Amino acid sequence: MEKNCAIPAGMRDWLPDEACLRRELINELLDGIALWGYEEIMTPVLEYYQVLTKVEDESGPDHLYKLIDRDGSILALRPEMTTPIARLAGGKLQGKPPWRLMYGAQVFRYENIQAGRQREFNQVGVELIGQKGPEADCEILALAIEALQGIGLANFTVSLGHMGVLRGLLESLPWQDQDLDKVRNLVLEKDFAGLLQFFEKAGLESKRREQLLGLLTQPLQAAEITQLMSGLPACLRTALAELQEVMNLLDNYGCSPYIQLDLSTLRSQAYYTGMVFEIYTSGIGYPIGGGGRYDKLLRHFGRDLPATGFALGVERLLLSLPKREKQRKSVVLFGDGSGASKSRIVEEAAALRQSGRAVIAELRGLANDEAAELTRAKNADIIRIAEVR
Amino acid sequence: MEKNCAIPAGMRDWLPDEACLRRELINELLDGIALWGYEEIMTPVLEYYQVLTKVEDESGPDHLYKLIDRDGSILALRPEMTTPIARLAGGKLQGKPPWRLMYGAQVFRYENIQAGRQREFNQVGVELIGQKGPEADCEILALAIEALQGIGLANFTVSLGHMGVLRGLLESLPWQDQDLDKVRNLVLEKDFAGLLQFFEKAGLESKRREQLLGLLTQPLQAAEITQLMSGLPACLRTALAELQEVMNLLDNYGCSPYIQLDLSTLRSQAYYTGMVFEIYTSGIGYPIGGGGRYDKLLRHFGRDLPATGFALGVERLLLSLPKREKQRKSVVLFGDGSGASKSRIVEEAAALRQSGRAVIAELRGLANDEAAELTRAKNADIIRIAEVR
Repeated sequence: MEKNCAIPAGMRDWLPDEACLRRELINELLDGIALWGYEEIMTPVLEYYQVLTKVEDESGPDHLYKLIDRDGSILALRPEMTTPIARLAGGKLQGKPPWRLMYGAQVFRYENIQAGRQREFNQVGVELIGQKGPEADCEILALAIEALQGIGLANFTVSLGHMGVLRGLLESLPWQDQDLDKVRNLVLEKDFAGLLQFFEKAGLESKRREQLLGLLTQPLQAAEITQLMSGLPACLRTALAELQEVMNLLDNYGCSPYIQLDLSTLRSQAYYTGMVFEIYTSGIGYPIGGGGRYDKLLRHFGRDLPATGFALGVERLLLSLPKREKQRKSVVLFGDGSGASKSRIVEEAAALRQSGRAVIAELRGLANDEAAELTRAKNADIIRIAEVR
Repeated sequence: MEKNCAIPAGMRDWLPDEACLRRELINELLDGIALWGYEEIMTPVLEYYQVLTKVEDESGPDHLYKLIDRDGSILALRPEMTTPIARLAGGKLQGKPPWRLMYGAQVFRYENIQAGRQREFNQVGVELIGQKGPEADCEILALAIEALQGIGLANFTVSLGHMGVLRGLLESLPWQDQDLDKVRNLVLEKDFAGLLQFFEKAGLESKRREQLLGLLTQPLQAAEITQLMSGLPACLRTALAELQEVMNLLDNYGCSPYIQLDLSTLRSQAYYTGMVFEIYTSGIGYPIGGGGRYDKLLRHFGRDLPATGFALGVERLLLSLPKREKQRKSVVLFGDGSGASKSRIVEEAAALRQSGRAVIAELRGLANDEAAELTRAKNADIIRIAEVR
């Protein structure tokens, strides 16, 4: 390809068919979510840097595309939608919570493109703002699962965890501020050997080490939770009790088969405070979505409200779904280029479009072989408008 | 509002209802345009600066939001879609032209916000690449007009002009390179007094001055074009002949009532080469859309193809259209918070959603007055799920 035609690293073009399938998928997801009473909102692509960095990310502000506005303030392209929506809900939303909000939007992050990640991608997501309690978390989980069912995703698993687990691990350690990031990174990377080493260095006794590691690595059933709790730090017991409540409620929705309790589940955003989850499907090495409860984000924007939500990765969903076909086959209308044929073509085209058919109307007068070539190139049907004399 | 909750100058949030209406309008426009055989594409929000500035704008590159990529290259947020699509068509599109392409996308420009302009806004547009001749220009004009009719815009006018008029004016002058920008700006700003002065200074004789000014300022009918041509520079005669052909073809579509021949019509982008147009509606001081022929842009991206297209401003259309109502009234389901009521609510909610009704399902147990308040806030209907004992 011409060097002139290059695009920035981590970006992509959407060719004919691809772009339309993306828009249709976003529409389908939002239309499904709207049935749960969620209302669509949108925020600018550009936000003040200080808004986006109110709660520091695990990855730090390094993942942000930054620029300087005319007035000297620092802007950044939004890396996710939860913080902009918290900003919006903090400052501008009228009426009384709870607010059920949804969006479909591009976000921008300096991801590692060597690992096949894109730096501009699309998310469809929801935020339920102003409700605490397992009912709200359960609604979010059930909605994520039904949204994925609704678009025809056959095989997926929701790994369910809780940020209280991380806090519980830290409670068990001689507390140091820098431990939080260290332990979080080890768990995020599922580096359990490294975590065990860290526990040893921190002077944790061997029985406790094994108990904590077991919690993170052993497959768990909801029914086992109660017996697990004994001897655990308060933080962990609370987290487990909350998860148990959420899982019991989820039974109502018939969603339990999708849920896998996995206490090593964490999210990289630092604003999560409670239940968290990630959604996996076969064949994709990254989660196709995730979310959780974030009860301390809104207070940075002037309204101290609990909240919970999720985001789905549109590009990853498109990779996971069975390939969809373009539904509509278009038709090429052409004639000999005479004035009479032109007006007949316009007339015929209007009638066919009225009936829902896509029509390429070639007024300029094509030879039969030219028309046939165009028709092949567009995978269309062809109609020759006979001369009118 | 909290300072924390501010957004950058020239940006806006889309509140519930607003965002959905925007998405619906974009969908409606694209669905209508697809009936003309146009295929959707998408490009990244970020492009290389050098791609976006291949053809210098009248406004210069000053209107671009710029930033530096990790690898040191200069990026910018796209200010319009025609150049990125030319880049895509030059480098990546498979098959043989003509290509009929469409998009719905945000673009970013440092506009004058004192004048009420936004710096992030949405465009729906089309590009017909690989066809010269009046048939293609006519298709673009007819498609723009039918797209606007299709969304229910009642009152609009298409001001039709030609870049050859500007070249004709310059041909009449003792040629100097800087004249192009000067004359273009005077015409763009419809500063005809300034233009007359400029003609005087340039030494144009008074009869010619009046002839040229007359062309730009007098209302013209298609039928008058032939008699106007005598004595005009070749460039102007060619432009007028092309416009006449386009207008004759437009008669086939019944579009002529929307067209107003106005030879002072120009577009600010420097890539236009032939027919150009702007669309106006009552009550909006800016064009709600516009476009034209650009036959020299694609060659910068390795394929020397003629092209023509238009873009519509989504925000301006939303201002112009009669206010649309949210169609769906949602319903709030609530109960006493008992286990039995929860499962009944989930069941009822699923059935109502199945029938297309939007349902807020409140599992947490609400008092009647709480539920009534929520219902009022969401302008919803309400159903109490009776206790099941």
